[in-house]
Amino acid sequence: MAGCGWARAVRGLLLDVSGVLYDSGADGGVPIAGSAEAVRRIKASGLKLQLCTNETQATRENFVRKLRAMGFDVSEAEVTAPAPAACRLLRERGLRPHLLVHHDLVPEFAEIDKTNPNCVVLGDAAENFTYANLNEAFRLLIGMEKPVLISLGKGRYYKETDGLKLDVGAYMKALEYACDIQAEVVGKPAKSFFESALAELGIPPEQAIMIGDDIVNDVGGAQQCGMRALQVRTGKYRPSDENHPEVKPDAYVKNLAEAVDIILQQL
Amino acid sequence: MAGCGWARAVRGLLLDVSGVLYDSGADGGVPIAGSAEAVRRIKASGLKLQLCTNETQATRENFVRKLRAMGFDVSEAEVTAPAPAACRLLRERGLRPHLLVHHDLVPEFAEIDKTNPNCVVLGDAAENFTYANLNEAFRLLIGMEKPVLISLGKGRYYKETDGLKLDVGAYMKALEYACDIQAEVVGKPAKSFFESALAELGIPPEQAIMIGDDIVNDVGGAQQCGMRALQVRTGKYRPSDENHPEVKPDAYVKNLAEAVDIILQQL
Repeated sequence: MAGCGWARAVRGLLLDVSGVLYDSGADGGVPIAGSAEAVRRIKASGLKLQLCTNETQATRENFVRKLRAMGFDVSEAEVTAPAPAACRLLRERGLRPHLLVHHDLVPEFAEIDKTNPNCVVLGDAAENFTYANLNEAFRLLIGMEKPVLISLGKGRYYKETDGLKLDVGAYMKALEYACDIQAEVVGKPAKSFFESALAELGIPPEQAIMIGDDIVNDVGGAQQCGMRALQVRTGKYRPSDENHPEVKPDAYVKNLAEAVDIILQQL
Repeated sequence: MAGCGWARAVRGLLLDVSGVLYDSGADGGVPIAGSAEAVRRIKASGLKLQLCTNETQATRENFVRKLRAMGFDVSEAEVTAPAPAACRLLRERGLRPHLLVHHDLVPEFAEIDKTNPNCVVLGDAAENFTYANLNEAFRLLIGMEKPVLISLGKGRYYKETDGLKLDVGAYMKALEYACDIQAEVVGKPAKSFFESALAELGIPPEQAIMIGDDIVNDVGGAQQCGMRALQVRTGKYRPSDENHPEVKPDAYVKNLAEAVDIILQQL
């Protein structure tokens, strides 16, 4: 696949994490073979690197700790995640959130005023998606003159070691329908989210390549932003993705290690 | 409002129940003033009567027992409800459901084969809308070659004495989005559901009047079926309903008692 030209003039890489660096699971997850070494090779090459994740089940601090324990040489500054982006948005607009998020994500919002809420922030709350909590979030929204629902991603579902789980997007749709509103999505595939990851790298989209396993949220989202994007055949990749009616990656690669092989050859 | 002509040549009435006969609540509910007497007057007049409800939190037997305890002279045969309609549909199509419904509704499906499910039936499961149960229903659907989701209604929310609750439609939207499918709705406003209520009465739509509090599911649905439809200003009625962009009732009435006054004057 080398020589196709898609790796030309690259100065930085955005990497999705779950399904690219490791396979997630209730037990913590397992690194994908060759990915830790691939991250080291990216850094040694002088290319810039930013992890661009929709992870909302842990603070950035704990997320990085987990990745480092799996052998990935990454730092908090190298992670673009929805919760910090949501905090910026809340501050900019003077919004005070009611949180329906995973217990482990709550500390990300420690500095945010949450009294007398005037919006709802929805993340992948997992076990916190109870009937009572969903009704509570709904009642707050329907009671607002102009309901504001901020959703940390809009994924349909994901796979854990004990099976498939409904993702935040499904619960977002439930609240959207009940309140007859549109949520504002923070996280992939929102353009502003990719742009903030690029801003961390300090490079324009045409000098960056996104590498992900999600044909819509990673590949489609990054291309909409003017980046090139590769789909790895790991994680949630399915062969049927290669017939996607709207999104066509710039290339497919076996895994992150192969992507890095090809990119480094062309530097 | 008499003399407007909307009550001409009527032979039967379809009545919504919650919000028309009584106001529901976790404590069982409270009859709306004049409604029990109105039902008696309908029967004494010779008009046919059928209750047309989206109630899915009780078997038809228990639902009628509750109504009778509140003073309503009604029988099981006079109730058209989603669960029996769903059972007919399941039998006709050889479908074996996985049930995500209210505990008290389960006996309605006693005669239905539920082994090795090839569809999901979704009702207003209330406390049974747990994270685990939603994931289970989702996994079954996504594992089907052609997922079949049958939803007992598609209401957005309803009011109980302890506050607003998300209705079955919100959870239907969550599963639709996660699986990228369209649910089949049994119950109002499905045309086939009104038609089965009319079949019970043995009269054509132009000889029937629907009386309900829900501008979309009662009034709009019945009109789509060729019936006339009144909106009562009780139950979930809100003044803003009178500016609905798509649905205009044939008339507004204060409550069921007023509707019956006017109709009986014109017989």
